Amino acid sequence: MTGPEGLNPPHISSLTALSAAVRRDEGVTGPKGFAAAGIAAGIKKSGARDLAVIVNTGPGREAAGVFTTNKVKAAPVLWSQQVLTTGKLRAVVLNSGGANACTGPQGFADTHHTAEEVAAALTESGTETGAVDVAVCSTGLIGDLLPMPAVLAGVRTAVQQLSTSTEAGTDAASAIMTTDTVSKEAVVHHQGGWSVGGTAKGAGMLAPALATMLCVVTTDAVATSEQLDTALRHATKYSFDRLDVDGATSTNDTVLLLASGASGVAPSEAELTEAVSAVCDDLADQLMGDAEGVTKRVHITVAGASSESEALTGARAVARDSLVKTALFGSDPNWGRVLAAIGIAPIALDPDRISVFFNGEPVCKNGVGVPGARNVDLSGMDITVRVELGIGAAEATIRTTDLSHAYVEENSAYSS
Amino acid sequence: MTGPEGLNPPHISSLTALSAAVRRDEGVTGPKGFAAAGIAAGIKKSGARDLAVIVNTGPGREAAGVFTTNKVKAAPVLWSQQVLTTGKLRAVVLNSGGANACTGPQGFADTHHTAEEVAAALTESGTETGAVDVAVCSTGLIGDLLPMPAVLAGVRTAVQQLSTSTEAGTDAASAIMTTDTVSKEAVVHHQGGWSVGGTAKGAGMLAPALATMLCVVTTDAVATSEQLDTALRHATKYSFDRLDVDGATSTNDTVLLLASGASGVAPSEAELTEAVSAVCDDLADQLMGDAEGVTKRVHITVAGASSESEALTGARAVARDSLVKTALFGSDPNWGRVLAAIGIAPIALDPDRISVFFNGEPVCKNGVGVPGARNVDLSGMDITVRVELGIGAAEATIRTTDLSHAYVEENSAYSS
Repeated sequence: MTGPEGLNPPHISSLTALSAAVRRDEGVTGPKGFAAAGIAAGIKKSGARDLAVIVNTGPGREAAGVFTTNKVKAAPVLWSQQVLTTGKLRAVVLNSGGANACTGPQGFADTHHTAEEVAAALTESGTETGAVDVAVCSTGLIGDLLPMPAVLAGVRTAVQQLSTSTEAGTDAASAIMTTDTVSKEAVVHHQGGWSVGGTAKGAGMLAPALATMLCVVTTDAVATSEQLDTALRHATKYSFDRLDVDGATSTNDTVLLLASGASGVAPSEAELTEAVSAVCDDLADQLMGDAEGVTKRVHITVAGASSESEALTGARAVARDSLVKTALFGSDPNWGRVLAAIGIAPIALDPDRISVFFNGEPVCKNGVGVPGARNVDLSGMDITVRVELGIGAAEATIRTTDLSHAYVEENSAYSS
Repeated sequence: MTGPEGLNPPHISSLTALSAAVRRDEGVTGPKGFAAAGIAAGIKKSGARDLAVIVNTGPGREAAGVFTTNKVKAAPVLWSQQVLTTGKLRAVVLNSGGANACTGPQGFADTHHTAEEVAAALTESGTETGAVDVAVCSTGLIGDLLPMPAVLAGVRTAVQQLSTSTEAGTDAASAIMTTDTVSKEAVVHHQGGWSVGGTAKGAGMLAPALATMLCVVTTDAVATSEQLDTALRHATKYSFDRLDVDGATSTNDTVLLLASGASGVAPSEAELTEAVSAVCDDLADQLMGDAEGVTKRVHITVAGASSESEALTGARAVARDSLVKTALFGSDPNWGRVLAAIGIAPIALDPDRISVFFNGEPVCKNGVGVPGARNVDLSGMDITVRVELGIGAAEATIRTTDLSHAYVEENSAYSS
């Protein structure tokens, strides 16, 4: 479920058993102790679903979060970072149709008000909740205030509709979509009697194709917030952080992990990390496959580097190169562009030792083209690019996409 | 001649008098002491001109060069860097139709052979020349060997056709074009009785849209190679280095400056630098206007930064952001993307102090949208984006373009 045969980056090879167990027919309500709802609150002009509430019904409410590294952070990010300092969350409210970023003090007040409304509605329905227990996530156009009457009324409706059903989880998944064409869900039911589920939208912590990548992961495992934090940081490092569609990083990127403890099982740190990683990796794979304008799913590996960090820098440089990405769109095995791209990466390399492979076929050996390199078939949707630097033993893989007409089309006509 | 009214970056404001004097009806043969030729040697399948020779007939032959910073350097770059260590050049031979990059020892031998052929042909025609006096520049697809019989025969033909006429300079300018739609030339005739002329192709030392940016500048001023080096480094720093179409840097980028001394006039270092800068700046402007798929000519200024270097880093981050560039293609005043782009630049900033202007109109003040910002008219071909960080006094401007369907089209169908 995590991509074509043989494409899994090496860091998750140890997850093979669990990756194979990832399913996509459930999401945040897969684990016990979670209820969700996704409704059309009228934030989007289209009338599509645009507001979701996900509630941890306990008994525990430990949580962890990872947020955008952009210095320009949206109001909901500033809010959620603050409330997460307690290491606990009762609920998450998410909206599409507006990022509530660059909206000043009013935008922050609106986020606060939204959290208060969720808390009030949950308290009225019998679950004592404070605004400080509610994380807020928003996605959409930067710079406009949200239509608060619609948001607040929507919160009330969503809380009334909360359900632990699979469908409720899927409704929540669809309510956070922006230019996504399909909702994304993943779940692992561990044989030890506990589960991890999640939903996501967008295209990667380091590279949202549009506005924002949001992800909520739930588990019924028993875990401390420190354990959740460790598991989530590891999972995002090897999944969303290595998905790079266009090099942009949004003002709103947020990944949350909530634990209900409802299974009564406390897995080991390693088991928990493995399961959270498997779910995040599968969601990252779904995001790549549904990135804006994607016609190619591309894995870029840089191997033989002096360190994993240098390998990652090199892979990211190739993944972000517009000339490489347009060539892949054209199914053109133009390996010279790969060399030109890696050559400007700030990493140690020797041009005369670089070899390049497209879909496993050698196209450049020790810096010189291989006969037949121009005939390698890149017409399929999945492409692997492997660059061997020949100076060390470290490697890293980045997932990316091609640069297509559809990418230009979607992104040139967004706010207008 | 250097762009729409008011768009000239501040660093060349002192050049106003000279900028106004830049003409585009002559190029490398504008200054005295230079002959040129541009012919169709059969390197390009299209039958278009593809080989140029530019000769310094003296009396001097001082020269300087600036080359790509890409660690993967084409054979002609390695060759030309080597021969320029003498600070002298008699001639430059340039070809389009093939970059001769990533071609190994054979590619380097071919470059050497080409220089030898130019030297032999010039010597036979009465100008004693060694291969070490000849720089070589190539542009086109990376990874293939050049068709040497065509190149060598072409060198002979070109040397026979050498002429000091304006047309010969223009022929040379057209012979180095790849995806350029028009040839680029510029000349300044200084009132002191000396001139600087030049030709260029591609799109910027730090951002060739395709394969390579090549530029040859000539002058009949009397100058030492050290003075030429100083003048050329200053000129490229503020012109080609601040033109950034897609963030790529080619394996072949080369800018050469040759001085014949034929005017008998030795201008001051400042005068020479000013004139070389004016010619390079005008050529950079022509490159921007003819970049691949360009539908918008964009000037991105970051002001109020703590240093010029930070301003430049910020401007480059905005100029390279695919979401900003697609929005500009769509004439969409999506200022939020500008904030998201500057927010990931590794520079000092305070999100609450950032203001943004499109075409001089405020769209974001202190991190918050200005009413009416979505209605700013960006439908014209020239767009200015100004970001004021409000934390210092330094500023820098990058020239760039939008990201259009035509860019994707040209670059997805290049080698095939």
